[in-house]
Formats: sequence, C-alpha cells, structure tokens
Amino acid sequence: LRALSEKVKLAVVADNRIVIDGLSAVFARSERALTVLVECNTGADRCGVVSPENAAELADAIVKAPGLAFGGLMTYPPTGDAASVQAFMVRAKTLIEKIGLTVSCVSSGGTPDMMSAHTAPITTEYRPGTYVYNDRSLVSRGNDCALTVLTTVVSTPAANRAIVDAGSKILTSDLLGLSGYGHVLGWPDIAIDQLSEEHGRLTAADEIGLKVGQRVKIVPNHACVVRNMVDAVYVVIRHQVIATWPVVARGKII
Amino acid sequence: LRALSEKVKLAVVADNRIVIDGLSAVFARSERALTVLVECNTGADRCGVVSPENAAELADAIVKAPGLAFGGLMTYPPTGDAASVQAFMVRAKTLIEKIGLTVSCVSSGGTPDMMSAHTAPITTEYRPGTYVYNDRSLVSRGNDCALTVLTTVVSTPAANRAIVDAGSKILTSDLLGLSGYGHVLGWPDIAIDQLSEEHGRLTAADEIGLKVGQRVKIVPNHACVVRNMVDAVYVVIRHQVIATWPVVARGKII
Repeated sequence: LRALSEKVKLAVVADNRIVIDGLSAVFARSERALTVLVECNTGADRCGVVSPENAAELADAIVKAPGLAFGGLMTYPPTGDAASVQAFMVRAKTLIEKIGLTVSCVSSGGTPDMMSAHTAPITTEYRPGTYVYNDRSLVSRGNDCALTVLTTVVSTPAANRAIVDAGSKILTSDLLGLSGYGHVLGWPDIAIDQLSEEHGRLTAADEIGLKVGQRVKIVPNHACVVRNMVDAVYVVIRHQVIATWPVVARGKII
Repeated sequence: LRALSEKVKLAVVADNRIVIDGLSAVFARSERALTVLVECNTGADRCGVVSPENAAELADAIVKAPGLAFGGLMTYPPTGDAASVQAFMVRAKTLIEKIGLTVSCVSSGGTPDMMSAHTAPITTEYRPGTYVYNDRSLVSRGNDCALTVLTTVVSTPAANRAIVDAGSKILTSDLLGLSGYGHVLGWPDIAIDQLSEEHGRLTAADEIGLKVGQRVKIVPNHACVVRNMVDAVYVVIRHQVIATWPVVARGKII
C-alpha cells in the first residue's frame, strides 16, 4: 500500500482503530500522508461505524495518527434509502466540524440508486460500479446492458432443453433476487434454470427452437462478477471487435 | 482440438450428430483418429442422449464418421441413483454390441456417490472431481476437507458481526443446497450469511468473539469453483507451505 501510494493518488477507509493504528505504523515513516476516510454504516449492514458519534471519534483518531490525513466520510448505502445516508452524513459532518476538522469528501455509491443520488445532497462523490456495463439486475430499472456472454449451443438433448457452453465458471451463481442465471437475448421465453461448471441449461415450456452450433448471447445477472471470470473483455461496435481489454486485477488476491 | 490430440491422449463426448459431423470434418484429415464416447443422460438431465437406442444410433454414426473412433459410453449420473446408470448402460452396451461394436469404456462420475460406484458394476472408469480437495458440500458424507480459504477479519462493526476480506470473488455464490457461504473452521456457531464481492459477512447469535486482524480459515461450499477464482493454490503440510500450484486453466475460455 505504501509503495502504491507513492505512484498514484490513493485513499482508503477505516471503521476501527486497529486498522488506523496499522496504517499509521506504516505511513508514519512515509513522506506523504495517507488519506483515510471513515466508513459509515448507513443501513446496508456491511462494514462501517454504526453512529455519527463513532464517525467523529474515528475522524479525530485519524487526524491524531502519525502519517495519516482525514479525508472525509464514505458509505455503501442501502438500496432505495437515500434519506438514511443524508441523515447520517449531515449529523456526522456537523460533529466532525465541531472538533475543528474539515469534511472534504462525502462519498456514496451504488448503481441501483445512481439516478436518485441528488436526494442525498450532502454527497460530494458517487461511486457507480456496475454502471460501466449494466446487467440483468438493472434492466428492471430501465437501463441498457453493454455486457453479454457469447455462447454456443452444444446439445439439444430434449425438445424443450438446450445446453450452452457457459456455466457457473462464466455466468457465476449470483442470482441477485432474479429467477434464473441470465437472460438469453432475443429469446424471452427461454429460462437458464441450472448451471453446472461448464454448461448452462436452457429450458422452455414448449419447443426451445435452438440448434446445436447456434450462437446465443446471454445478459448476465451480475456484470461485476462475470467480468472477473475472464482474462479479457472484447469491445464490439457494429459487429466489429474494436478492442480487447485485459482484466488485469482478477485473481490478484494477497 | 486437433493440435492437442497430437500431443496427448484425448477423448471427447458427443450426444448429437451435428457435433459428430463437425469433429469428423476436422479429424478426417488427421493421421490419428479422435476417440469419441457417447454421452448418456442417466437422469441428471444435463447433456446426453435420452435412451439406450439413441446411444446405439450415435455409436454407429461415430464408427462410420471418417477420422473418428468409438470409445464407449459416458455419463454424469444423478446423485444417489446408481441403479439408473446400471440399467441404462447395460441396455446401451447390449444394443451396441449387437451391431458388432465393442464398448471398451463405460465412464461414470461424481464425488458424492464415489463410495458406492461399485453398485453400478458396468462402470469401467470413474471421474471424481471434487475429491482431490473435498468441500463443505461433502462434509455431511463424512469426508475431510483439504481446501480452505485463509481470510483476515477487517471489521467488527457490531457485537455479533464481523467482516472478512473474502467475498463472492473468492468463495463464489454457490450454495449447493447449504445454508450460508462456507464454514468458519473452529467457529461452528458463526454463519457466513452474506457476501459482497470483496467481503464476507460473519454473524453469530451473540458475541461473535473475533477481532480485527485475526485470521480465520473458511471451508468453501464448493471446492471446484473456488479454486477457479485464484491464480495459485498453496500446499500446506504442518503449517509449512511446501508448494505453490498455479491454476493454469482458469479463464481459458475461447
């Protein structure tokens, strides 16, 4: 992290003192301070301090920690509840300013609520992740999808069933509350009802209408995890591959 | 496939004539015939011909196709139903032998039923995939697990909750009928109740008892897909890393 901070503009988050102490121990010897935001739990119940009071305490701890700079507040909000974000962040910002600190950034995020980000106006930065592609989980919110998985029908073992060469090692098992493992573009009556690792099972109520060798595009449920399954993404405009993007960060787990 | 067949012993399966024709078109010009087994649906309803009669027809088609050699029968069986495998394969083998062909291999598989493979005695080859590691889905069958995911607690945002640095991009969303996304070794009362991409959420009924910075090992639900998420597997004997195995085939999707 310290080596990386010397190359790029970098900010991290913390929601506890153990992480602050650990970061400080490393960055106390660094020429440049590390920017640390306080992660806040505004209702999604992942990480984050549970109260504005706790946020102010940690902001104070960051400022006092050698090698660290207080960067502001950060949250991943609960879906459909911008009011919670606004209430938590206004209160936290007020408390932090009372102890003489500046809250230069209030960062929120989430593609699902991106178009209502303005309803939490205290937000100064918004992080939409899935938005670069969109996916099936966002179609119901009126978005287009840029990412598809190109598959080939390898078997039609029954009249109402076809098997494609994409299974859980491409589409993943993420459901995100949806029925089935993706949407077969142009075939609205076909369901992807089961995945094995290398195969997807497509079913229809009647004749499925697909032939072995036929290619079908699948809009995945969750773009983020699907892109992580492949070494490269092909950029296609008007049926031409105009670029290949390597997925450089996949598998980079320490 | 043809280039590969010149380097290694290779056999593939087919459950339809389109695939047989495609393989034949390529291997008709090859010096060495490609071994093709007929894939049979013995109840798992993935790929495979649906009847022993269809299996015999395809065996005949393979033998008559230039460049191909008939290698036998193959199935991925339904869990807990070796009787179906035995019945289908005996009938298919009999029909195929009637047209003068030899069924040199009857291949079945599946780790869950590995220890009852002998109850389908027509089987000559058994393919247990998960067995090399085992996983949480097999614990109930009395197996040990060799594969664990080493994680670090990064946050304890509430008394009964902890967050580790392993999410769906490591553990995957595969449930395989289980409750939760893995088993925390040594902490039987802790559940992994939710994954985001980089985080796993651990919950307990009361105090969770974990500290930020603490390392915990997680036995994943499904070893096969978890190993596919990382670039390397560390082989540990008595707390010593004695080897690093690269996962060379991950992401190798054409």
